[in-house]
Amino acid sequence: MAKTKETTEHDELVFDVFARACTSRATLEHITGRWGTLAMVALLEGSLRFNALRRRVDGVSEKMLAQTLHALERDGFVLREAQATIPPRVDYSLTPEGIRVASKLMELIELVEATMPTVTEANVRYDERA
Amino acid sequence: MAKTKETTEHDELVFDVFARACTSRATLEHITGRWGTLAMVALLEGSLRFNALRRRVDGVSEKMLAQTLHALERDGFVLREAQATIPPRVDYSLTPEGIRVASKLMELIELVEATMPTVTEANVRYDERA
Repeated sequence: MAKTKETTEHDELVFDVFARACTSRATLEHITGRWGTLAMVALLEGSLRFNALRRRVDGVSEKMLAQTLHALERDGFVLREAQATIPPRVDYSLTPEGIRVASKLMELIELVEATMPTVTEANVRYDERA
Repeated sequence: MAKTKETTEHDELVFDVFARACTSRATLEHITGRWGTLAMVALLEGSLRFNALRRRVDGVSEKMLAQTLHALERDGFVLREAQATIPPRVDYSLTPEGIRVASKLMELIELVEATMPTVTEANVRYDERA
């Protein structure tokens, strides 16, 4: 596992997603969670308002999308820009770090979509055996 | 979004993780779920018995790891080999498709671990504003 090291005044920080208490595991879960991945990849296409993003991420509830975006904003992957109009307009976009992570997620999605014919065959074989 | 197309006798299958009912979304969730990613990447290092895998994926319960491996086996990413010894010995390893997906997950993890200093700073800034 590649370790990222940052020297601080007090000690050396090592991030390891395999360690239960490591903050990197929480961050990984924000971007790979049920809605995190889809929201990040949707924003790769450009900034979106909340409702447009919700339509793109088919099936997400308003509450879950808000929670997802909140976590991604706190981690510095998503930028939330509110304009003081009536009604207020809120746009979401990716930060440079968000673009890097979302691009990697996109590669993963493309790989999964390309693998689906094999997965579908494996599902059938497994269910026949079971 | 890259579409994977497979022509069948009846119609053309198009996999799209953004579509609520698409099976590719379930598969994506199996590999990016709370424990799926860690189990897949742990198996990149080689085949492991259940208990060794459980120790590697720090914090996972026996039940959750069993469910996770079951879904990954059904999707054709993980191979389960039971030997009729006493006590029975069960080894888990990655299939060729599993290796491809786990390698991409590993790239994602390395990117997240490398980004953690920035994420930690973003967390602090966010919490100070809130």
